Amino acid sequence: MPRLDPDVSTLINRARAGDIRSRARLFSLVEDGGNPAATALATLAPWGGHARIIGITGPPGAGKSTLVGRLAREIRSRGQTVAILAVDPASPITGGAVLGDRIRMQDLHGDPGAYVRSISTRGALGGLARAVDGMVLVAEALGYDVVLVETVGAGQDEAAIIGVAPTVVVVEVPHLGDDVQSIKAGILEIADVFVVNKADHDGADQAAAMLRAMLSLAPPADGWRPPVLKTSALTGDGVPALLESIHQHQCFLEQSGRLAHWRNERAERQIFEAAQDNFLARLRSSVSAAQLQSLITDVASHRLSAEQAAEQLLDALDQQPMPRYNPTRQEDRFSGS
Amino acid sequence: MPRLDPDVSTLINRARAGDIRSRARLFSLVEDGGNPAATALATLAPWGGHARIIGITGPPGAGKSTLVGRLAREIRSRGQTVAILAVDPASPITGGAVLGDRIRMQDLHGDPGAYVRSISTRGALGGLARAVDGMVLVAEALGYDVVLVETVGAGQDEAAIIGVAPTVVVVEVPHLGDDVQSIKAGILEIADVFVVNKADHDGADQAAAMLRAMLSLAPPADGWRPPVLKTSALTGDGVPALLESIHQHQCFLEQSGRLAHWRNERAERQIFEAAQDNFLARLRSSVSAAQLQSLITDVASHRLSAEQAAEQLLDALDQQPMPRYNPTRQEDRFSGS
Repeated sequence: MPRLDPDVSTLINRARAGDIRSRARLFSLVEDGGNPAATALATLAPWGGHARIIGITGPPGAGKSTLVGRLAREIRSRGQTVAILAVDPASPITGGAVLGDRIRMQDLHGDPGAYVRSISTRGALGGLARAVDGMVLVAEALGYDVVLVETVGAGQDEAAIIGVAPTVVVVEVPHLGDDVQSIKAGILEIADVFVVNKADHDGADQAAAMLRAMLSLAPPADGWRPPVLKTSALTGDGVPALLESIHQHQCFLEQSGRLAHWRNERAERQIFEAAQDNFLARLRSSVSAAQLQSLITDVASHRLSAEQAAEQLLDALDQQPMPRYNPTRQEDRFSGS
Repeated sequence: MPRLDPDVSTLINRARAGDIRSRARLFSLVEDGGNPAATALATLAPWGGHARIIGITGPPGAGKSTLVGRLAREIRSRGQTVAILAVDPASPITGGAVLGDRIRMQDLHGDPGAYVRSISTRGALGGLARAVDGMVLVAEALGYDVVLVETVGAGQDEAAIIGVAPTVVVVEVPHLGDDVQSIKAGILEIADVFVVNKADHDGADQAAAMLRAMLSLAPPADGWRPPVLKTSALTGDGVPALLESIHQHQCFLEQSGRLAHWRNERAERQIFEAAQDNFLARLRSSVSAAQLQSLITDVASHRLSAEQAAEQLLDALDQQPMPRYNPTRQEDRFSGS
């Protein structure tokens, strides 16, 4: 059981009392990971589970951010509060944001019932889902009724959205480039609700028809057939209907027992991710720089496979007393051999 | 040291002798991970390190696959052999391929000096870079001179390309959708060579000029300024010049010592990824289904944080003798409390 750091406790109290700067600091603390995040998450856990979590994904240029902004305003107009967590498909090196994206959300600025926060994808192994989960919990603990999670629709970031949100909206556009690959084969399994955005563009009806045709070929999973809607994020057309479809999917999840199933799957993933982080921190602190460099050299020069080097690292760890994860790096604890 | 399974040994011998079906099976064995993959990789390790590894990334619809096919033919025309590893931005659930992508590579089919292989991104934590590394080693051990790794340019898949290939080509298109976000802020740090593909389309010159302007603002990293080239994957225009630029970058890496540095970074990542896999397998085998379900329920119902549940799992593991990773799942080894 992590001890409750008095600073973290104060931060949480201030953030929950509505202090904007404390809210931002609490999100950052959880995003940064490590012991302070673990302490905060243990404290926040009992406040989790009440918010509706909605994932929004789709290719770059589909107008996701504008649509998310529109959805947020629609949610606000119905009297609910909303947090937007925008996963940034930017370089893990600079952390630079997608140009223009953040700008469009600025008109939510100044509304105390809406909160917009970017999450950088960083390079961390499995770090994305873990960071998003933590920040969803922060949003829940801060009392937001709805959490919108936006990711770019490609590769592992797209896969991660299924784990972090029980309802996933996939946004497509009438024409993205001129390639058939703009609508991907695997997307049908990810989407609970399809949106063809930029409905005023040529080809919107064809894109919607094509999606419906693809969906009619696929067997309906778990008794839910994803609806295909058209929106215009610029004008707001179709946004109330989209929110209605999302709501219907969430009712379906609850009534069918799928929500409980999803919560269990999420919990299992979270437990193993946390165990893994703990283990890696232990491992880093139990090996000396010289020992590690020697193994790196062996692997880089193809004298050992990475698996063989890992076994040697684990042998070293096994011969140690097992310290609990301590973020203060303990140098040179490894005795050599 | 993993013992050499006689079946794996036979498979490797047959694959290295040129048997096509054994080659495919060896790639699959390594992609699937676990003990057989570890055994194979340990055997293959001494054959690694000689191939040129080239990463190719960019947004969906940029024509990457066609360009990769063209590059492969250019490499073949110079008398070198080539393996293409195409990371598939498809759903981790179906493993469905991007429509159309694979079709375009078929004209390499039948050429024994070229090998095309898809890698599904799956949902595995950090699994992508690890799977690609292993398959690059297989390609090296099978004697391919050049390995082309193609990923979709977004999020964590894009980040992974830096780790698996020392030279990264970023492919852009004249217009992708109508949003400013089609060229991302962080992309400048990822690219060693920029390509504006579909050079015959309107806007190719403007796109190239915009990229050059962005690059002129950024400080040249490590003494290398990424060139901006134009290609037409359809006609093949610009492809020889692209291969020349890639070659220049690889000479630069070697002469500047950056290649050795990259190899070290890759080895360190590989060692920790392997250690992590080993640990997770141990953890899974040391806990009973009942114990795990009880922790999952506690986390799913917000009685415990994932970090607290993970600590309980780790305590259980600490109280066990440490078995080496055994892929045969050992049920019910956890004694309860």
